[in-house]
Amino acid sequence: MNIVDYLSTIPLFEGLPREQLEALSRITVTVALNKGQIIFSEGDEGKGFYVVLKGRIKIYKLSPDGKEQTLHIFGKGEPFGEVPVFAGKHFPANAEALEKSKVLFFPRDALIKLIEKNPSLALNMLAILARRLREFTVKIEHLSLKEVPSRLAAYILYLSDREDGSSQVKLDITKGQLASLLGTIPETLSRIFAKMSKQGLIEVLGPNIKILSRSALEELVEYGGWL
Amino acid sequence: MNIVDYLSTIPLFEGLPREQLEALSRITVTVALNKGQIIFSEGDEGKGFYVVLKGRIKIYKLSPDGKEQTLHIFGKGEPFGEVPVFAGKHFPANAEALEKSKVLFFPRDALIKLIEKNPSLALNMLAILARRLREFTVKIEHLSLKEVPSRLAAYILYLSDREDGSSQVKLDITKGQLASLLGTIPETLSRIFAKMSKQGLIEVLGPNIKILSRSALEELVEYGGWL
Repeated sequence: MNIVDYLSTIPLFEGLPREQLEALSRITVTVALNKGQIIFSEGDEGKGFYVVLKGRIKIYKLSPDGKEQTLHIFGKGEPFGEVPVFAGKHFPANAEALEKSKVLFFPRDALIKLIEKNPSLALNMLAILARRLREFTVKIEHLSLKEVPSRLAAYILYLSDREDGSSQVKLDITKGQLASLLGTIPETLSRIFAKMSKQGLIEVLGPNIKILSRSALEELVEYGGWL
Repeated sequence: MNIVDYLSTIPLFEGLPREQLEALSRITVTVALNKGQIIFSEGDEGKGFYVVLKGRIKIYKLSPDGKEQTLHIFGKGEPFGEVPVFAGKHFPANAEALEKSKVLFFPRDALIKLIEKNPSLALNMLAILARRLREFTVKIEHLSLKEVPSRLAAYILYLSDREDGSSQVKLDITKGQLASLLGTIPETLSRIFAKMSKQGLIEVLGPNIKILSRSALEELVEYGGWL
């Protein structure tokens, strides 16, 4: 498969018009790596990002006492190092080939020049990422709808118990933090709050929650499932 | 709150340097909407995207017989219409204000000019979306790890039963389709396959799966939980 055809299969570039894929292919450099070879180290300037062509790449951090913590292992078609490179920052971790591998390198400078000449390339890449984010949001929502309402009900009852069973409680963390705590995302949490309100379980006003049906919340904790 | 401060709180622009937020704020137009007012209709040229300032916006499609299907309801801080606009396409659905609302409009032409002059704005927005995608991938993985392995085990056993209990089965759909079927994403499915292989439950070679421990797969279906 030539590089242009290969680029078209990578999610980050999926659906880009042929001429933009060709322009991209002209700035890429193929890098062959041996097992154990270091690609970049923490603190290195982010001069470009990578996409795995073959093999597996480990991203890891080293603690001050030399203990290694693996953050990700990336395989074929997956980009890595793109967040710090897009943001113009240093690499926050190390990258090493776990086996004989091949990666495509996209130099940042060349990418910036390409976007200068062809801003619609950037818009198209933004479209691709935005569409994937939408899809992921829906997936998280589907995955969350079974467990998160029950965890949220438990949390509301916990707040109430802490206030001696008061039916009026106040969130002491932001909704973003609460979403994280419950294992979901703010968008989905908002919809669960809305649904619980609509069904008459609670009333939400900013950070203040009024418990309208304690028994329904208790049932939700006990039996789980959706409302 | 002025527009620049407001823009800095929107996930799409989070962490952009002040001067880029200011440049963005200069191209935005604030639009006040009455309840029921149409913002765009299916098939309209995507001349720009929107971010909700106040109120709620419904995105919906109309079937040929006039039946309405709501796709999304967006609230404060959420962008809408950005995927078709980034991609330079027509709007695939309709948008209507559900109540008295205010939205920020980002004209596509002005955005392209801004990126031409300042390509790092596009890179920064790409960084923001790429980082969110990473976070969402991790969330989906966490949410999936409890249920998806058990569903995958059930699917492998189903394939085997269809072949009269053969211990050698072949996936008849792509791994992307399988991920969708099991309610997860390809990245997470790959990791679950890798973990099942490492634990000696199955051996995977392309689309071919060899069942090494039928009883372990059955246990996974029965009791769920992680391996």
